[in-house]
Amino acid sequence: MHVNELETPSVLIDLDIMTRNIEAMQERCDGLGLAFRPHIKTHKIPDIARMQLAAGAVGIACQKVSEAEIFAADGFEDIQIPYNIIGEKKTARLMDLAIYNRMSVSADSQTTVDGLSAAAKMAGVPLRVLVELESEQHRAGAPVERAVALAEKIAADENLHFAGLLIYPSDASIRPALQETISHIDALGIGVEVVSGGGTGAALHAHEVPELTELRVGTYVFNDMTTVWRGWNVPENCAMTVRTTVVSRPADERAILDSGSKTLSSDVYEGRYGYIVEYPDAKIYRLNEEHGYVDLTACERRPQVGEIVHVIPVHTCVVTNLHERLFGVRDGEIEVEWAVAARGKVW
Amino acid sequence: MHVNELETPSVLIDLDIMTRNIEAMQERCDGLGLAFRPHIKTHKIPDIARMQLAAGAVGIACQKVSEAEIFAADGFEDIQIPYNIIGEKKTARLMDLAIYNRMSVSADSQTTVDGLSAAAKMAGVPLRVLVELESEQHRAGAPVERAVALAEKIAADENLHFAGLLIYPSDASIRPALQETISHIDALGIGVEVVSGGGTGAALHAHEVPELTELRVGTYVFNDMTTVWRGWNVPENCAMTVRTTVVSRPADERAILDSGSKTLSSDVYEGRYGYIVEYPDAKIYRLNEEHGYVDLTACERRPQVGEIVHVIPVHTCVVTNLHERLFGVRDGEIEVEWAVAARGKVW
Repeated sequence: MHVNELETPSVLIDLDIMTRNIEAMQERCDGLGLAFRPHIKTHKIPDIARMQLAAGAVGIACQKVSEAEIFAADGFEDIQIPYNIIGEKKTARLMDLAIYNRMSVSADSQTTVDGLSAAAKMAGVPLRVLVELESEQHRAGAPVERAVALAEKIAADENLHFAGLLIYPSDASIRPALQETISHIDALGIGVEVVSGGGTGAALHAHEVPELTELRVGTYVFNDMTTVWRGWNVPENCAMTVRTTVVSRPADERAILDSGSKTLSSDVYEGRYGYIVEYPDAKIYRLNEEHGYVDLTACERRPQVGEIVHVIPVHTCVVTNLHERLFGVRDGEIEVEWAVAARGKVW
Repeated sequence: MHVNELETPSVLIDLDIMTRNIEAMQERCDGLGLAFRPHIKTHKIPDIARMQLAAGAVGIACQKVSEAEIFAADGFEDIQIPYNIIGEKKTARLMDLAIYNRMSVSADSQTTVDGLSAAAKMAGVPLRVLVELESEQHRAGAPVERAVALAEKIAADENLHFAGLLIYPSDASIRPALQETISHIDALGIGVEVVSGGGTGAALHAHEVPELTELRVGTYVFNDMTTVWRGWNVPENCAMTVRTTVVSRPADERAILDSGSKTLSSDVYEGRYGYIVEYPDAKIYRLNEEHGYVDLTACERRPQVGEIVHVIPVHTCVVTNLHERLFGVRDGEIEVEWAVAARGKVW
């Protein structure tokens, strides 16, 4: 089917750009001697993860046990969940996966470690646990002293295996804390097998943190306007566009698109909700669920009602999560229609 | 099943509060002599729409043809789509519905009207079209002169039926333009059968716009923190909460929840992404997809890792759209588990 026959809004993936992105990141990691572990949150589609593994990735990262369940059922065996998995039902499901797969998770508290240990004991197989170190993101993650104490606890726990350290994002700013943590853990006679870094921006600076052994990156596979506007990328590397209709031109300087927050998400970058390929000077300045508000003031040429345009989203991962399917396009033809298999999995 | 057995994050609906909300809005409309047409975007669940009809609603509003298809298949016959439906495939699907149901749509341009007329001609049944009048929202909608011209065109088109005027939101500020439009259309000898207003906030001021004959409101059924923080509501009227686990306490003043933008959406109100019922002084100040960042600085009592809390979202409609199911709860028991039937329908 030709892409022109698709209704709007539809999420298109340019297959040539995606393939190029997959190859470029793998080459970068290979060049740095880093194991590469793509994060599936960006596409949530096993077929795309298979392309990433075929290019040389060592395994995948998922953010939820429910995502890991879907990928494990589809044949993926090396799955990392860089998250504190808490609650008896979740840790039991995690251990069901760990019996047959090489699962690893992260922890930043004694409570998390205790829960993982109890579940691993019940399952009768050891679980690989990385300790998350706090980064400048100030999200989850333990400060140095607690990270060292957790590493010691995990290493001493017969139900767990201390698998190393995990950081997000792994910018160069983490290096002093990382070195300090490693040296303390070393001094305890415990090996740090893996140092797993992450983040699309941090990937550009991975050479500045030679302690890293592995990189987790998601967004690179499609890219988006956040990576462009942050200077990490150009629009020509963005594989995802949303095919959209101009449904209203209420005033000369304003257009309304049929892509709103239900299509593009509300993720915003400095007041912009996307970039219109055909009208680079247009500004998507507001979204309601089914309405995208476009300011055309800066545009010489302006679109008509019924015209179809293509929007590069601000944040590609959250767009994937909103849609039932993505359409893989080459030379104007839809080559593949993917169901977003791990869409909306929150457990 | 008791609600405590549910994994997190899960979206709970307090059935008593929802029932009270449904009754209160219907009573308000009955008192004002207004037809009430709930917008299903908030719940996307036929069973809840049936409760709204049972309470006295005249029909429903959907925002997409694909949503209308789901509700029509479930027995709903009076469906309004307050949107410019553009594109031959969409207008053909709309007319498939119009053959067996009382469908109405809105238009704000000649292009939209032409497309609807062609599709109605092909289907051989007339289509009810309302003209959307521009409001202070500055979204879609025609200014007065164009609205009058469109009304005249529609009334003269044998394939279409001019069904009236439509406004969003229908605040009192619209009244001068509305009166002017009605008087011009009257002068052409055309009747204005319906004046359909909308908006949860506007519902409070519906008595200030006596020209209205009908009200479309969605959010009222669950309510959310936007309606609370705007002063339209209190937390006790919010039926939707997200059951959430504290998965990390990286620092004394910070907690991380397992509800991020994939659970709560990125919709934000003055820097806040939700309200924690158990910790009213906590501030959810940032979201990543699976992480909710909470500032505990103002809290005397602070949660522990593993503790379960309940978040009232900023915007309930977009939360519904992110989830496969909602859980209806009364007295701690899950009475009903609803599939979100019209979730993610963008066509």
